[in-house]
Amino acid sequence: MQIKPFITLVGAGPGDPDLITLKGVKAIQQADVILYDALVNEEILDYAKPGCTKIYVGKRAERISTSQDYINKLLVDYALTHGHVVRLKGGDPFVFGRGGEELDYVRQFGIPTAVIPGISSSVGLTGLQQIPLTYRGISESFWVITGATSDGQLSADLQMAAKSTATVVILMGYGKLPQIVELYKAQGKAQLPIALIQNGSLPNERIALGRIDSILDEAEKNLVGVPAIIVVGEVVAKHEAFARIKTEINTLAL
Amino acid sequence: MQIKPFITLVGAGPGDPDLITLKGVKAIQQADVILYDALVNEEILDYAKPGCTKIYVGKRAERISTSQDYINKLLVDYALTHGHVVRLKGGDPFVFGRGGEELDYVRQFGIPTAVIPGISSSVGLTGLQQIPLTYRGISESFWVITGATSDGQLSADLQMAAKSTATVVILMGYGKLPQIVELYKAQGKAQLPIALIQNGSLPNERIALGRIDSILDEAEKNLVGVPAIIVVGEVVAKHEAFARIKTEINTLAL
Repeated sequence: MQIKPFITLVGAGPGDPDLITLKGVKAIQQADVILYDALVNEEILDYAKPGCTKIYVGKRAERISTSQDYINKLLVDYALTHGHVVRLKGGDPFVFGRGGEELDYVRQFGIPTAVIPGISSSVGLTGLQQIPLTYRGISESFWVITGATSDGQLSADLQMAAKSTATVVILMGYGKLPQIVELYKAQGKAQLPIALIQNGSLPNERIALGRIDSILDEAEKNLVGVPAIIVVGEVVAKHEAFARIKTEINTLAL
Repeated sequence: MQIKPFITLVGAGPGDPDLITLKGVKAIQQADVILYDALVNEEILDYAKPGCTKIYVGKRAERISTSQDYINKLLVDYALTHGHVVRLKGGDPFVFGRGGEELDYVRQFGIPTAVIPGISSSVGLTGLQQIPLTYRGISESFWVITGATSDGQLSADLQMAAKSTATVVILMGYGKLPQIVELYKAQGKAQLPIALIQNGSLPNERIALGRIDSILDEAEKNLVGVPAIIVVGEVVAKHEAFARIKTEINTLAL
């Protein structure tokens, strides 16, 4: 049988295995090989057909080389030798997932590609917590920014975002929370609502709600570590539990 | 049998019925009543159980009242009289979907709620077209903005976004494309790549690719009307067909 090389980037969603799309499941069912990341829920691999080769290429694996160059080469090698390769990524492949770099590489070999979007944690985890990213009269936009820039500094986009009225969602930025808090304080926004969502959509999900000037304390009380996303904006006050915080603050003020 | 009122907002995704999540399908299967929008693909309604009441509340319907107040009341009435109501919305319920307003209303009646996120057209339609929203060294963020503000003006956020290096996605802004082009030209960005995606993810999908100073012509050549999303940023040049445009421009310059 002739091998027909094909590579599909599939977004697995933010954690809950039911947050993948039907289209994503269909691609997995047809895959000859699946290369999957650390943030992908492994239950999703159960949709694969018998004999499908499943390879873990998460960056957290220590025993195998999982550099981007190595993953790129694996994609091409498996497509040429096995046929349909599904590259399964947490969230959406193009939201800080290096999907673009992988496509650029594999296209050099003339291998056809497809992309099946996934629920980005930026949209999905806020949604599950019933925090509306946009709200008429409160927020006309949302801005999704990485906290993990290549040079280790806060993104220049984040400096500008702190000045805007957009709802701001920061992915991979939990380690820089103190710097982010300072950035917003410097804009006179110490009272702006902020939420941290950890292990979003999973049974061990945790959330911390507060304002810029209280969130570091709330994080210490409520959370245990990464991965967590950060949401900043007036819409965070729409979270059902936020009213309780307001009451506490009013009580303290008496 | 006792009625247990419950309301779930479900994102149906951008058009292709396979772009709903498994979780979304499960909610629909359990629904006693479904209220659905104009942008929802009706094939998705086939997952409903026999006897489920399906009500169209799309804003394009002319014969029935579909004001937001009316929809809010319907949600409550059906939840109290029928039980589990699924509010099915195109894309994601919180990305310009008024999901937040509906939750605020129904919570006044003590009705429990849940939200199941959907693939927003901002992430999904760009993904299907293999335009990466972020790309290391090119774009560290993406900003999603509505073109349809309540006062009819361009959003102030859009003015700021044109100055930023974020990938900018504008939903419901196709009718204001000439103004958006002027905004970017005023920032000296006449050469910035831009894409228009119409009827994204559906069989009649169309795309126009160009630069700020050529996109109005491209739109005229390639598109037929709304709904279309607008994507602005260097990442648009990653689209496979964009190289052809570059070649054409170079040929013209000879």
